[in-house]
Amino acid sequence: MGTTSLSSMHTVRSLADHVGGTVLGEGADTLVTGINDLSSALPDQLSFFANAKYEALARASRAAVILVNPKDSSKFSFTRIVVDSPSQAFGKIAELFAPPPIRDEPGIHPTAVVAPDAVIGEGVSIQPHAVIAAGVRIGARAVIGANSYIGEQTVIGQDSRLYPLVTVRERCIIGNRVILHSGAVIGADGFGYDFDPKTGRHAKIRHTGYVQIDDDAEIGANTTIDRARFGKTHIGQGAKIDNLVMIGHNVTVGPHSIIVGQTGISGSTSLGSYVTLAGQVGLAGHLTVGDRAIITAQSGINKDVPAGAILSGRHAMPAREALKHEALGRRLPEMLERLKALEEQVRSLTDSKKANS
Amino acid sequence: MGTTSLSSMHTVRSLADHVGGTVLGEGADTLVTGINDLSSALPDQLSFFANAKYEALARASRAAVILVNPKDSSKFSFTRIVVDSPSQAFGKIAELFAPPPIRDEPGIHPTAVVAPDAVIGEGVSIQPHAVIAAGVRIGARAVIGANSYIGEQTVIGQDSRLYPLVTVRERCIIGNRVILHSGAVIGADGFGYDFDPKTGRHAKIRHTGYVQIDDDAEIGANTTIDRARFGKTHIGQGAKIDNLVMIGHNVTVGPHSIIVGQTGISGSTSLGSYVTLAGQVGLAGHLTVGDRAIITAQSGINKDVPAGAILSGRHAMPAREALKHEALGRRLPEMLERLKALEEQVRSLTDSKKANS
Amino acid sequence: MGTTSLSSMHTVRSLADHVGGTVLGEGADTLVTGINDLSSALPDQLSFFANAKYEALARASRAAVILVNPKDSSKFSFTRIVVDSPSQAFGKIAELFAPPPIRDEPGIHPTAVVAPDAVIGEGVSIQPHAVIAAGVRIGARAVIGANSYIGEQTVIGQDSRLYPLVTVRERCIIGNRVILHSGAVIGADGFGYDFDPKTGRHAKIRHTGYVQIDDDAEIGANTTIDRARFGKTHIGQGAKIDNLVMIGHNVTVGPHSIIVGQTGISGSTSLGSYVTLAGQVGLAGHLTVGDRAIITAQSGINKDVPAGAILSGRHAMPAREALKHEALGRRLPEMLERLKALEEQVRSLTDSKKANS
Repeated sequence: MGTTSLSSMHTVRSLADHVGGTVLGEGADTLVTGINDLSSALPDQLSFFANAKYEALARASRAAVILVNPKDSSKFSFTRIVVDSPSQAFGKIAELFAPPPIRDEPGIHPTAVVAPDAVIGEGVSIQPHAVIAAGVRIGARAVIGANSYIGEQTVIGQDSRLYPLVTVRERCIIGNRVILHSGAVIGADGFGYDFDPKTGRHAKIRHTGYVQIDDDAEIGANTTIDRARFGKTHIGQGAKIDNLVMIGHNVTVGPHSIIVGQTGISGSTSLGSYVTLAGQVGLAGHLTVGDRAIITAQSGINKDVPAGAILSGRHAMPAREALKHEALGRRLPEMLERLKALEEQVRSLTDSKKANS
Repeated sequence: MGTTSLSSMHTVRSLADHVGGTVLGEGADTLVTGINDLSSALPDQLSFFANAKYEALARASRAAVILVNPKDSSKFSFTRIVVDSPSQAFGKIAELFAPPPIRDEPGIHPTAVVAPDAVIGEGVSIQPHAVIAAGVRIGARAVIGANSYIGEQTVIGQDSRLYPLVTVRERCIIGNRVILHSGAVIGADGFGYDFDPKTGRHAKIRHTGYVQIDDDAEIGANTTIDRARFGKTHIGQGAKIDNLVMIGHNVTVGPHSIIVGQTGISGSTSLGSYVTLAGQVGLAGHLTVGDRAIITAQSGINKDVPAGAILSGRHAMPAREALKHEALGRRLPEMLERLKALEEQVRSLTDSKKANS
Repeated sequence: MGTTSLSSMHTVRSLADHVGGTVLGEGADTLVTGINDLSSALPDQLSFFANAKYEALARASRAAVILVNPKDSSKFSFTRIVVDSPSQAFGKIAELFAPPPIRDEPGIHPTAVVAPDAVIGEGVSIQPHAVIAAGVRIGARAVIGANSYIGEQTVIGQDSRLYPLVTVRERCIIGNRVILHSGAVIGADGFGYDFDPKTGRHAKIRHTGYVQIDDDAEIGANTTIDRARFGKTHIGQGAKIDNLVMIGHNVTVGPHSIIVGQTGISGSTSLGSYVTLAGQVGLAGHLTVGDRAIITAQSGINKDVPAGAILSGRHAMPAREALKHEALGRRLPEMLERLKALEEQVRSLTDSKKANS
């Protein structure tokens, strides 16, 4: 775990070549045996600089070489590889030192329970104890993780990967190359009841719809996406949803949107494409959020959001206004003092006026 | 998935008869082949209007017919079915077009592991790979979903349904007609430690109590309800709990309460009946919340809540006061300007007084 | 469930002896048949008093005897056992009346799937339908719960306990005496993408690192801890993490830290030792939180926190300042009224000055 496999030798220069970068500074022939972050890197490791906050860490780093972009490069004198995207180049170099990815052997494990009428594509891997219900169709090369459950008539696209212990309920549609992380629950009933004042009870509303997740979307661990009351809850192409997120019934998440951990979206709210919801955001139901809108962490949104807006805070203020607002909030003690001083002065002025009249 | 089964033909008039409603406007004989929301409905589909926000959508809808209540009906001229509860009538009509519910065959799947001394009622369905530990009792017609786990001596009532991948730990009591959604964890240890200053370590407090969930309650996907330190954590009859909610040890949730997604209730807090906690609310421990209290979304509550109160915000203000408070918060920039202007005027008055004296 | 096993008879005096306490008040020979909280205790049950808030409940309690500390004892006249730590003594007495702990028989259940090359220690219990992938090592006496999954090359230490339905992905390191509660997901991919402006798509960043959880840590139900991009996400010795918490990639949680339910920590943030994060807290990424810092419930932290700080609220104010701030916030209506009154007075002063000049 702590060591990295060294299938071949890498020097600073050979790594620069590998990512199409240029070496600046001394030590182009130094041997690099691994990768690390700026603060932990050893003298034979490569690191990368991509966040201005870490400038001091970069200067103090013991790394053999650091990936930097052309703009930042001039600030530094240490040995560096200049590339347009240090983060992407780092990813490419990380692959050289990374343990090989886990391979899931194609085939149905003998302990898996697969309904006789399920249609299983070529090269599919169904791991131990997975349960595939009646009428399911699974596309070529998909992986169904151990102890996962796929409900009746659900469709899983090609090359999709369900990690262990995923639940997809009946009649859902999962596209191609979709990733579902462990503990995700797709297609549980939406949270809807009709209150009957005569009996004082909440009557369950049947949710006969489904969940559709389009190609290339990724859904985080223990995230829940509820099925629609009717029609569908819809996650668009390439949308990326983090862990422990809750997506209510009939919600639409537009293509390529990003939803960070522990965010919740209430029923029937619709997000455009390229929307970003930061962590722990809450959206009320029946809202429309326009394309490319950004909601900052822990915000609460209860009205529609126009395209491109950047909103913050509990009451959906534009992020700049929210910052100003917050700064003013901090001036309350001072404002109260100024108010008191004024009252004193005005009292004195009024008294002297009375005395003069 | 996109189509609906048409076991028989339905017209606007026959659907109105089905829900005891009256057709107004033209087209009572139009054939209806499905249901949809106002904005997506096609000319052969039925929709419903129940939220004033959607009045424009209703007017623009292509639906063959729209369910409306008597009060709203006069606003519209489109073809409509007038019923007391459009939402409930819609649910009833939705059933006509819905796919048939999934049937779980009674019986114990051969891959399920059931302890020899477990008592399994008549007509129970135990799905593949479910694990039923020693001393468990399961009431008639209950369904235990695939890959679920029922711990030692736990009791599950009649007609209850545990979806796949549910965990119920040992010695819990689940009532009749209870629904537990996938990923729910019932009876994990409460979060409690005694800090030992001598060793600098947190010593685990054993939680020997259990969880009791009364009849007709419903627990959402990936929600956790911790077992009591001693005695019980208690979910009352007909309570409805959404996804990703956390209920701490020794909490009581009163009958027919509603707890929306991602809310957390700390240990030993007690809710009365018909309480509503909206989404992402947090309650501190050892509190009492009175009957029918309502806490709005994202609020934080750290003191007792009287019956019937409607509270908002981080500091448990009455919702109306919170709204006023928020509005005042927005006036801070203006208040600061007025303060500055006053200071200028008072300075001028004081100067002129000095000059005059 | 409602009854307690009575393997032997206990009196108030014998229980006092058992915890090294002193009986004050009458009834030292009363038979005690169980334990309960102050408000529910019956006349043959023992309870404990440890929270000043419950003084009235203690006075009104029907308990046969109540555990109190020496300081509180003088306030009361009811029958009591005086001990230094009523909570710990209660725990010790609770054991006498508690149902016996569940015993997990050592051995590998025949339905478990264990890779031929997995190394399983002495006395390990692998429960039904657990799946142990290739290259896994499990230390002596560990328990792997039903329907759990342990990924390739992961190491589980001695005496650790994984409850049912836990997922640990490949190449993670779990220490000795670690407890993982049901639904926990350890080692899912971190949430990281490189946006490619040419294609308008988010490219997944491969996460080749792992998760390391040190000895004596405990991880709550449905909590997720993501694997590192490279290197490790690290949970320190004796750290206690509650339910539904999200720990991002490359996060460090220092030894003996406490993280309460539904808190989220973004990628690469580092916590010192003995840090406390209360419930529903959110921490931005790339932060450093010093030893023994405390963050109160529902706070949002987006800058570094010094050791020992106690911070509150959305903007990381010291807790005292936050309280003052909040109190001032409540005075806004009054401040606005005072501002209006001042404006009126100044107007009048100015008018009279004009009239006089």
